[in-house]
Amino acid sequence: MKLTEANTDRLLALKDEVTASYGELKARDLSLNLTRGKPSAEQLDVAESLLALPGEGDHILADGTDVRNYGGGDGISEIRELWAEVLGIPAELVVAGDASSLNIMFDLISWSHTFGNNDSERPWAAEAAEGTVKWICPVPGYDRHFAITETFGYEMVTVPMNEDGPDVDAIRELVKDPQVKGMWVVPVFSNPTGYTVTREVAEALAALETAAPDFRVIWDNAYAVHTLTDEFPEILDIVGIAAAAGNPNRFWAMSSTSKITLAGAGVAFFNSSAENLDWYRKYATIRGIGPNKVNQLAHARYFGNAEGVRAVMRKHSGILGPKFRAVTEILERRGLGDLGVAEWTHPEGGYFISVDVIDGTAKRVVELAKEAGIALTGAGSAYPLKDDPNNRNLRLAPSLPPQEEVEVAMDGVATCMLLAAIEAAEAADAAEAVK
Amino acid sequence: MKLTEANTDRLLALKDEVTASYGELKARDLSLNLTRGKPSAEQLDVAESLLALPGEGDHILADGTDVRNYGGGDGISEIRELWAEVLGIPAELVVAGDASSLNIMFDLISWSHTFGNNDSERPWAAEAAEGTVKWICPVPGYDRHFAITETFGYEMVTVPMNEDGPDVDAIRELVKDPQVKGMWVVPVFSNPTGYTVTREVAEALAALETAAPDFRVIWDNAYAVHTLTDEFPEILDIVGIAAAAGNPNRFWAMSSTSKITLAGAGVAFFNSSAENLDWYRKYATIRGIGPNKVNQLAHARYFGNAEGVRAVMRKHSGILGPKFRAVTEILERRGLGDLGVAEWTHPEGGYFISVDVIDGTAKRVVELAKEAGIALTGAGSAYPLKDDPNNRNLRLAPSLPPQEEVEVAMDGVATCMLLAAIEAAEAADAAEAVK
Repeated sequence: MKLTEANTDRLLALKDEVTASYGELKARDLSLNLTRGKPSAEQLDVAESLLALPGEGDHILADGTDVRNYGGGDGISEIRELWAEVLGIPAELVVAGDASSLNIMFDLISWSHTFGNNDSERPWAAEAAEGTVKWICPVPGYDRHFAITETFGYEMVTVPMNEDGPDVDAIRELVKDPQVKGMWVVPVFSNPTGYTVTREVAEALAALETAAPDFRVIWDNAYAVHTLTDEFPEILDIVGIAAAAGNPNRFWAMSSTSKITLAGAGVAFFNSSAENLDWYRKYATIRGIGPNKVNQLAHARYFGNAEGVRAVMRKHSGILGPKFRAVTEILERRGLGDLGVAEWTHPEGGYFISVDVIDGTAKRVVELAKEAGIALTGAGSAYPLKDDPNNRNLRLAPSLPPQEEVEVAMDGVATCMLLAAIEAAEAADAAEAVK
Repeated sequence: MKLTEANTDRLLALKDEVTASYGELKARDLSLNLTRGKPSAEQLDVAESLLALPGEGDHILADGTDVRNYGGGDGISEIRELWAEVLGIPAELVVAGDASSLNIMFDLISWSHTFGNNDSERPWAAEAAEGTVKWICPVPGYDRHFAITETFGYEMVTVPMNEDGPDVDAIRELVKDPQVKGMWVVPVFSNPTGYTVTREVAEALAALETAAPDFRVIWDNAYAVHTLTDEFPEILDIVGIAAAAGNPNRFWAMSSTSKITLAGAGVAFFNSSAENLDWYRKYATIRGIGPNKVNQLAHARYFGNAEGVRAVMRKHSGILGPKFRAVTEILERRGLGDLGVAEWTHPEGGYFISVDVIDGTAKRVVELAKEAGIALTGAGSAYPLKDDPNNRNLRLAPSLPPQEEVEVAMDGVATCMLLAAIEAAEAADAAEAVK
């Protein structure tokens, strides 16, 4: 957003009023936090019964496996089948792990780096030693994704994350470079925009010709069922789509129950081609003996079936929906759109709202909010190396605080956005006067 | 063991009797298994109440942490403090993870390989690219350890595992080579011998001068409290010993509750110097958000305190002790020691018994047993690359089968050992006759 698009005169006319509001805000001595994409206690209460599951005496599976003992690297059939039904994919192409899908993503990159993946001519480390391994990052995106590729020293190349998914034309050009080895994407209710990849874009990604034979898209479907309305999004069988497009090994698809049951104590899932899974198992079975099957059984018992997952998510929607609606309603009511001070997304699912403020003011908004006792995620955090070239993007996370706190905090944030915009308008005026 | 040490005449005199016994054994059409170092169902029953823990309503820690939510990469204080008391170490130097300590060991090597550890001049991968990274493997040892260093392409150099620990004189020579980057060791009730490293040997390992500044000993204390008697071994504070010796970062010390509570669903622990832990956190916090705190709390509640851990292990000893004693008693009763056909360890803890049979006959024993329906771990499995240069070592795992099956299987195994020895004696006689 550029200041030229804002209504400078109307903004400056608000100066006294906004300055007074900010003074009152600071005087309230708040301590509020909109930084964390964490579920609230109220949401976690939905899964409280899980803390006593599977329960004494329940440890033998239908196939006779004792979940209390070693073995079963792919996870238990009970949870793999249930989850495959949720995702609409074949159960034999999904592996159930411990709680964290991020762990699996890190390992997939780490092992491709050290050993090469099943389509590699040589390890990515060997290529990195001779030049640069590049990685496509749709922006704004997920900071923890970018932190992984940063850690491995990969050059992160950004493309816009549009309403229908990452910019395929830009990606088509980038993947002509054999050093481009992969791409991050959150396909449904993307972090932080809430955008969802359409079938058309998914098919285009699956069909792309890439110079690197071992190119991989990490399809992190973290919010597959995380609706904020009464409707669930269509879940694309991306691995099936890729197979149909003749690129069966293109996608490493992730999901988890982390924001469905318990954050950090759920079950993570890895869905990919049979060949990719075989390659994964080759190292996973050296790294360890298998995932926590007791927790997997607890989850299978808790959900009962695929519909049980959706039933849980409707409860989450009931808790989260009003918080998200409060954020967008307050931004609207305070006139930030009308004044040209901010543009924001209207997610129908997920955990974040992405807000673009006037270019060059995002950091100032965070600073003003901090001084008023409202913690916001650092400006630029949705960009690789936390570098938002326009210093305009903010990621709001309204899930954790209670409804009332979300409303108080957002009203304060709106004041900070207005004040930062007024400061910018004044500075622009002063610069103009010097000329 | 060499055949020359066996009583050949007495052996050959037994031929008809042993051949008949083997025939009867085969006729019984058994299906028994001594291959797996897994706890039995009876042992797992001891922890059955864990399947309903922590229980509904129990999710807030003493410090206010909600275990159901994200955060806390080091694990919860409740289990770190309890375990630190078990090990006799400072709680701030122990990190509690998910179930598998093997996972942590793999990651430590993987990250040292890719990034270098906190004492590395460069990543181990860079050294591997220019020459060979070498790793010291006390033998016989743990096959899953060796599989990790094999996967990274390290050259595994063996040293004898003696009754007081790995051969320090041999190690002292090896570590003069800067390419030698590390060493495996199971310090207590070692896999598969049951030997325990003495304080003297531990202090010598801690004090060694190594050419590589980033040399690490993976001190896998998997059986720290896994007694087969009424006595618990002394647990050495190896990290403290190393600090006193002026090499604070030498040891990465591992332990877990895997064979205390539930195998594959317990809690693993990593104990090391503050500097080593900081280096570990640097990558662990990129790889994920933290371990499963719900399972950690369940374990803290299950044990209650450090004495609770020992109380559980006394029950295991009561179940396992008779199985181990049956193995050694049967070998003795069948005269294998007297005839010079086998030598075996007498573990007072752990999960295995190591047996040396006559040189060149270990594989034949496994083959004969298999034909009689008794599965033994492959000969040589306790050596890197499964290569026992003398083809003499067998690893027996009597934990999983019920007592009666252990006894039937071991009597059969004794027959197979005798028959293989007789075959070897006949072959030696025939060779002699040709001369």
